[in-house]
Amino acid sequence: MSLFSTEVAVTQVAEGHYQGHVHSAWNIGDKPNGGYLLSLATRALSAAVSHPDPISVTTHYLRPGIPDAPCDIQVQVLRAGRTVSTARATLSQAGKPRLEVLAAFSDLAVAAGVDTDITLSPAVIPGPDACVQRDGAAQGIDIPIRSRLDVRLHSALAQPGNARLAEISGWIRFADGSEPDARSLLLFTDTFPPSPFGVLGVVGWVPTLELTVHVRRRPAPGWIQARFTTDDLHAGRMIETGCLWDSTGALVAQSRQLGLVLQSGQAS
Amino acid sequence: MSLFSTEVAVTQVAEGHYQGHVHSAWNIGDKPNGGYLLSLATRALSAAVSHPDPISVTTHYLRPGIPDAPCDIQVQVLRAGRTVSTARATLSQAGKPRLEVLAAFSDLAVAAGVDTDITLSPAVIPGPDACVQRDGAAQGIDIPIRSRLDVRLHSALAQPGNARLAEISGWIRFADGSEPDARSLLLFTDTFPPSPFGVLGVVGWVPTLELTVHVRRRPAPGWIQARFTTDDLHAGRMIETGCLWDSTGALVAQSRQLGLVLQSGQAS
Repeated sequence: MSLFSTEVAVTQVAEGHYQGHVHSAWNIGDKPNGGYLLSLATRALSAAVSHPDPISVTTHYLRPGIPDAPCDIQVQVLRAGRTVSTARATLSQAGKPRLEVLAAFSDLAVAAGVDTDITLSPAVIPGPDACVQRDGAAQGIDIPIRSRLDVRLHSALAQPGNARLAEISGWIRFADGSEPDARSLLLFTDTFPPSPFGVLGVVGWVPTLELTVHVRRRPAPGWIQARFTTDDLHAGRMIETGCLWDSTGALVAQSRQLGLVLQSGQAS
Repeated sequence: MSLFSTEVAVTQVAEGHYQGHVHSAWNIGDKPNGGYLLSLATRALSAAVSHPDPISVTTHYLRPGIPDAPCDIQVQVLRAGRTVSTARATLSQAGKPRLEVLAAFSDLAVAAGVDTDITLSPAVIPGPDACVQRDGAAQGIDIPIRSRLDVRLHSALAQPGNARLAEISGWIRFADGSEPDARSLLLFTDTFPPSPFGVLGVVGWVPTLELTVHVRRRPAPGWIQARFTTDDLHAGRMIETGCLWDSTGALVAQSRQLGLVLQSGQAS
């Protein structure tokens, strides 16, 4: 069992009611990483539907999570279809909802229609060993999640205020050597530094209001390559679009989030 | 009152329970347009929260809607914060849920943090009068929605099988001359032909499983310019990303949808 699999485990305690534990090893600063909380909720959703792969997952972050504390997850299946199941989940801690999740599941091994070669290809960037490990200093925070995830940043973009583009590229894998699966891609889309920090300098905590992830293919073993760009940053509200590719260069997930950029360390 | 405003009107019949009517004038083929159904649900959500602008709206289309029939919308406010309200809605007809919506509302006139000039700019395309009106023939269907929306397509891309890129560009406005507002942008992101049809030829009905729209700014009066591209079309599942700009060139909305491409008229 991988650490991830163990630490997102949930137990069903009643019809549609699951319980888990929020481990502080997945913190960014003193708060649980949002992708980790989403993974807990998705584990409960997966247990409640018959299709294996999350193909569209949207979460709204209502309140920060509480590390080293239990969580309750209420699941409601909205439609159980032949090829797609749709369900929602509410993750609560200390009696208050923290995440609301709306998701569709299907089987990515089964074709639903037309195939084409239209896709997004990865850029050529230096390999993981030529990139630098993510260091919380760029955001001015500790990142305990380093014990769980090995995140490497393309060095040209890894220093705050050192990039022309509001873009973060790099690589990610589990620190314990376990291989990625479709569900771990949800986590991987929300564990890189905020992409505006290359332009703005230290940006502190960028709270995510909402994150949507589309899993496109089950990933091959090995490193996942990632690229995140800020599309639009206006009046403190940021849209960041992400792509993940597996070790064969196949697009495995796309993401988009609405985040808040409350402060910046230096002018652009 | 605009036709749109009249035809998405809802009446509150109990706490969190609204009713409306699905008008067949918004059909694509014999089914209500998804963006129109979403607009009905969003009207009910707007009535239930205090913030005026939908800033993040995700809908899962569970079943097709029924034209010329009433609808029920159940709304649950998940969190009413100082700057953001989050709520969900279920739109049902004939006793079955058709749409599930999860949305955040805020006030786009109030800045939440850092401002930058990072944005997506519109491409230069021929003006509306040099574009061609959307014709259902390209999809092999009637589009009664033409009575409500004036959709113009960039002619280089308007003929099926005639484009190198899986891209649709053009312009949109209400046919009755009423001006766009923040909420009408949700509708506008889901009323162009599917972007793969330029590459694939006639693609028929492309059912949307899920659509997420981020409204970025309140639009200025005038035409809205739109661009939709297919990012990835694999095993019948398509990710389409859209941008809308107002008449001043400001990015007013971004969209992304997961759709199914069940058939194509000619090989790519």
